[in-house]
Amino acid sequence: MNSNNSAVEIETAVKLSVDAWLLSNRRMNTLVRNLTDKELYSHVAPGKNRGVYLLGHLASINDAMLVLLGFSDRLYPHLEPLFVSNPDNIYEQYPSIEELKESWCTVNYTLLGYIEKMQPGQWLEKHTAVSDRDFESDPLRNKLSILISRTNHQNYHLGQLTFLL
Amino acid sequence: MNSNNSAVEIETAVKLSVDAWLLSNRRMNTLVRNLTDKELYSHVAPGKNRGVYLLGHLASINDAMLVLLGFSDRLYPHLEPLFVSNPDNIYEQYPSIEELKESWCTVNYTLLGYIEKMQPGQWLEKHTAVSDRDFESDPLRNKLSILISRTNHQNYHLGQLTFLL
Repeated sequence: MNSNNSAVEIETAVKLSVDAWLLSNRRMNTLVRNLTDKELYSHVAPGKNRGVYLLGHLASINDAMLVLLGFSDRLYPHLEPLFVSNPDNIYEQYPSIEELKESWCTVNYTLLGYIEKMQPGQWLEKHTAVSDRDFESDPLRNKLSILISRTNHQNYHLGQLTFLL
Repeated sequence: MNSNNSAVEIETAVKLSVDAWLLSNRRMNTLVRNLTDKELYSHVAPGKNRGVYLLGHLASINDAMLVLLGFSDRLYPHLEPLFVSNPDNIYEQYPSIEELKESWCTVNYTLLGYIEKMQPGQWLEKHTAVSDRDFESDPLRNKLSILISRTNHQNYHLGQLTFLL
């Protein structure tokens, strides 16, 4: 294996994961655009989360990616207690769907801007929630692992949200 | 970037995608083991697929991976028309849940055996459904792309199947 080949290979492998993220994100965008407010306020299945909760949940998880990937601070830290660290329906007030859709779009648009500037090798650098020492003993705790796990998480909930259509 | 570094990087990038597949597959295994026959015969949500259909669907999609990754022929080609190319409930007879669970386990166990023997660089080789010429113009149509897309597909339905618990 020569250096040129390996550089092409790492570029290819990283591009596949980035493309998988973008595809999943685009599918979520299309779904969110097509769902009415009434549909989003419905439960995805009897006794399960409301669509609006999953939308806020994914917006907040993606918002946290900005931090984990070392891009910026969170844009919407107030979403975390509402949609990640607590279950649905325990607060008196939730953001409107219009506001959540706007947060969702802005987070993903912001992420995309940073992702497009990443060089393949940068994805293999440590993410911000792991220490230098821990990263040295486990180089799999890198930025690419964040992207892959968040893609899988997004697809998991995407499968549920389609039930609202 | 020297050759050694790049070889480590490609190994790392591939391992992340393989690990994501294994994690998703393990989660499905745990779920399938925990679901009763009665639960699997239920619809994952009103008007949506039955659990048993999604189990057969994922077993058949994973079975086809054996071919796409160049490992072997399908083990259970009869599952394809029942669970992939046709919707649920159009045939008079379906395999029993016991039989489907056995097919599911055998397919994944077989896949795992081959996956464990793959060298990182082999994941960047073309999958079997693309021609040499097409692969030359689009090297992203490789075995790793199959693994990543099937992981995402599996997680999509995993999110739906958990509703049966």
